[in-house]
Amino acid sequence: MSDRTTARRKLLVVANRAPVTYEGGTARRGGGGLVTALSGLIAHHDVTWVASAMSDGDRAVAAEHDGSFEETTRDGATYRLRLVVHDSAAYDRFYNVVANPALWFLQHYLWDLAPELGPEFLAAWDEGYVPVNEAFAAATLEELDREPEAAVLFHDYHLYLAPRLLREARPDVVSSHFIHIPWPEPDYWDALPAELRVAIHEGLLANDIVGFHTERWRDAFLACADRFVPERRGRVTRVVAHPIGVDADEFERLRDDPEVLEREAALIARRPEQLIVRVDRIDPSKNIVRGFEAFGLLLSEHPELHGRVGMMALLAPSRQDIPEYAEYAAAVERAAAEVNERFGRDGWTPVELDVADDFPRSLAGYKQFDVLYVNPVFDGLNLVAKEAFLLNERDGVLVLSENAGAHEELGEWALTVDPFDVSGQAGALYEALVLPADERRRRAEAIRAHVRAHDIREWISAQLSDLDAVRSGE
Amino acid sequence: MSDRTTARRKLLVVANRAPVTYEGGTARRGGGGLVTALSGLIAHHDVTWVASAMSDGDRAVAAEHDGSFEETTRDGATYRLRLVVHDSAAYDRFYNVVANPALWFLQHYLWDLAPELGPEFLAAWDEGYVPVNEAFAAATLEELDREPEAAVLFHDYHLYLAPRLLREARPDVVSSHFIHIPWPEPDYWDALPAELRVAIHEGLLANDIVGFHTERWRDAFLACADRFVPERRGRVTRVVAHPIGVDADEFERLRDDPEVLEREAALIARRPEQLIVRVDRIDPSKNIVRGFEAFGLLLSEHPELHGRVGMMALLAPSRQDIPEYAEYAAAVERAAAEVNERFGRDGWTPVELDVADDFPRSLAGYKQFDVLYVNPVFDGLNLVAKEAFLLNERDGVLVLSENAGAHEELGEWALTVDPFDVSGQAGALYEALVLPADERRRRAEAIRAHVRAHDIREWISAQLSDLDAVRSGE
Repeated sequence: MSDRTTARRKLLVVANRAPVTYEGGTARRGGGGLVTALSGLIAHHDVTWVASAMSDGDRAVAAEHDGSFEETTRDGATYRLRLVVHDSAAYDRFYNVVANPALWFLQHYLWDLAPELGPEFLAAWDEGYVPVNEAFAAATLEELDREPEAAVLFHDYHLYLAPRLLREARPDVVSSHFIHIPWPEPDYWDALPAELRVAIHEGLLANDIVGFHTERWRDAFLACADRFVPERRGRVTRVVAHPIGVDADEFERLRDDPEVLEREAALIARRPEQLIVRVDRIDPSKNIVRGFEAFGLLLSEHPELHGRVGMMALLAPSRQDIPEYAEYAAAVERAAAEVNERFGRDGWTPVELDVADDFPRSLAGYKQFDVLYVNPVFDGLNLVAKEAFLLNERDGVLVLSENAGAHEELGEWALTVDPFDVSGQAGALYEALVLPADERRRRAEAIRAHVRAHDIREWISAQLSDLDAVRSGE
Repeated sequence: MSDRTTARRKLLVVANRAPVTYEGGTARRGGGGLVTALSGLIAHHDVTWVASAMSDGDRAVAAEHDGSFEETTRDGATYRLRLVVHDSAAYDRFYNVVANPALWFLQHYLWDLAPELGPEFLAAWDEGYVPVNEAFAAATLEELDREPEAAVLFHDYHLYLAPRLLREARPDVVSSHFIHIPWPEPDYWDALPAELRVAIHEGLLANDIVGFHTERWRDAFLACADRFVPERRGRVTRVVAHPIGVDADEFERLRDDPEVLEREAALIARRPEQLIVRVDRIDPSKNIVRGFEAFGLLLSEHPELHGRVGMMALLAPSRQDIPEYAEYAAAVERAAAEVNERFGRDGWTPVELDVADDFPRSLAGYKQFDVLYVNPVFDGLNLVAKEAFLLNERDGVLVLSENAGAHEELGEWALTVDPFDVSGQAGALYEALVLPADERRRRAEAIRAHVRAHDIREWISAQLSDLDAVRSGE
């Protein structure tokens, strides 16, 4: 890492979710994905984080402060927090009509599950997504007044419009936008009305840098930009691919965490001879139902595996208040029950479905798998595929969807599956179970070495270098 | 047209459907899309047409002949016909499991309506699509033995595997393959198992020429070829875009056909002041339901149009034996009834739904529309948009989906709509209804001039030139 990228900087991180929420007078400091990923940034730089006030407690805290105020992360690092208070009806439409059901579903190619984008959706865009982005841009501008030299780092699909509003007010600001989910190819964006897809792409192109986890999403974005914004107004946007990494040291420290050891002992007590593990939130993009169907097909084709192989699905519940998610959770349960009814017998339950928000349990699963099964329909990156190999102790084999972003890095050491192809997945699971020991070891070690060599610090550093390159006009 | 392309040639057309079917001892000479398009080819060249025997009568006729035999078109032109007799179970799987529900739906981005591609589908591929393509390749080879110098012209999505089988047996054959439906971008092909999408692309790349109606489908195919068949084995395939045209003279002759005049008189008797017309087969890709929803939205936003504007949907029934199509036809009826119940009143039915296989009626609609509404989800080309302007007598306005292939040619004179955006379509219909007379005329004349200048002869001629270029190694 060069001096330049380790020098202390002024940074404005803008993301919908804050590193902390307030309930009553209590701060709950989260360890969610983006906060974890950016904790190194917060530790070493002057970070102001602009985020939505989501709870009543958040709004109360925001009301106490005029602008940003000092907070600390779970690790004790100091940063400034700016909570943006939105009109609650606007925020509801922003979050529950536009950002999550429409943009997130669209960008995971779950179009058929997305809502009908009729007048109600268009109203939610105009009166929800637009004003929330305006509020973010206004708050960011105020924070920039306080720290005029700060670079602005936008994150993800909630804030596609804010960069352009910022650029119009401050033409010289340096800004980047990192997208953590897939970017569909141009045709697929037809699901959105023309002026909305143009607004999204124009918004992102108002940044100096737009970042993705893979070259595949980056190339798709470039193709979309060519189609939807053919006239670029002379502005140069650097569109980059930097796959996110994990904090390898931190993960390896968790290997002997007492809670993890407790969960692991329980898992060992009930594990079959060979164990297929999946670790996911229950959401339709994770493709859990087809995964169980593939395991059922494997068992029907290979009776010799009965009683010896099990699939453990370590699932975290997700957004059960949303009908599509609740229906999907029910479908997941049905699919697991179907396999168990068909093949289960005394002393052997083929599919163990374990639904709980229990991180130590997931880590125990990471240590114990013989096959790690990661088959999302589409996934921006998928950190499970990286994290698990840091802890695994059995030279486990990775069965990986070609549509997980991590496939671009890890594909050569994984058994690749098409997430829609149930029978191909059954075949890959079988191949994984019978792979010779030396080949298992070779692949597992290569994945581990890759994950260690390209950890979260590399991702942070790449983004800081990009910002420097913009500033110096390289 | 150069002498070279008008010189008489030996051509082998390979397509699933023949220009004729036999019932009992009677030949029914069809006027279907491809036959009509290629009638000029048959008239001026030595054509052998290889097609599936579909009916019992076809099989009886095929049994009477060893190889091809002489037939005539409806217009009296002579050609040779080779009927390929398939195993009936294999043909059923080829046609009713693979080609139509899977490939056709996939290529129109109707993925969510496609069947689950499980073991049954894979079996239908192996034991249906593959053997039917093998039978086509074998029959084509036999006909080539008879006419060794003939160039082979494959057509459409039924025959993706045959060109490679032909190439392996006859490395020096000159072959082309024209695709009449859209080509999805690479990500969308994930709906098919990896080996199938590779086989499809390798099959097509075994041709010397692969043709599409638009640059958009061509570019998507090239992107797919790069992703799915990165190693090309040194073979050069020309991938071209030649939009198909219509026989303008023939259409204009039909203007005063007695049946057309009769239908037109009936239509005039009941038409409202301004008439929006759509002419389609009832299939989900045509997007008829959203079209009615858009019209309903228009009427709710513009009460001043009530009683003065009507939508006439001139629809041909399609494949009612297939559940998806039957369900879609029912949804079309419901959507029309909903608009009529909400807005209709004595003496004014907003939506007139006219379901019949009645070509003269469609031509009467072509003459009488004020707005022609063509809003397919995706469409390889859409000939309605071209044909209708040859006959229209009211300087009608074209409202055209950006996903119809014809949009690449006609878009600049049309009002463009996003087929998923109901409210945008309502807005475009309104704009079309109030467009000033001189602007209507300017656009309608430009479309008519384009269609006349780029008629079916140009399309045929472009394909013959491509074949010549391959032969001469240009």
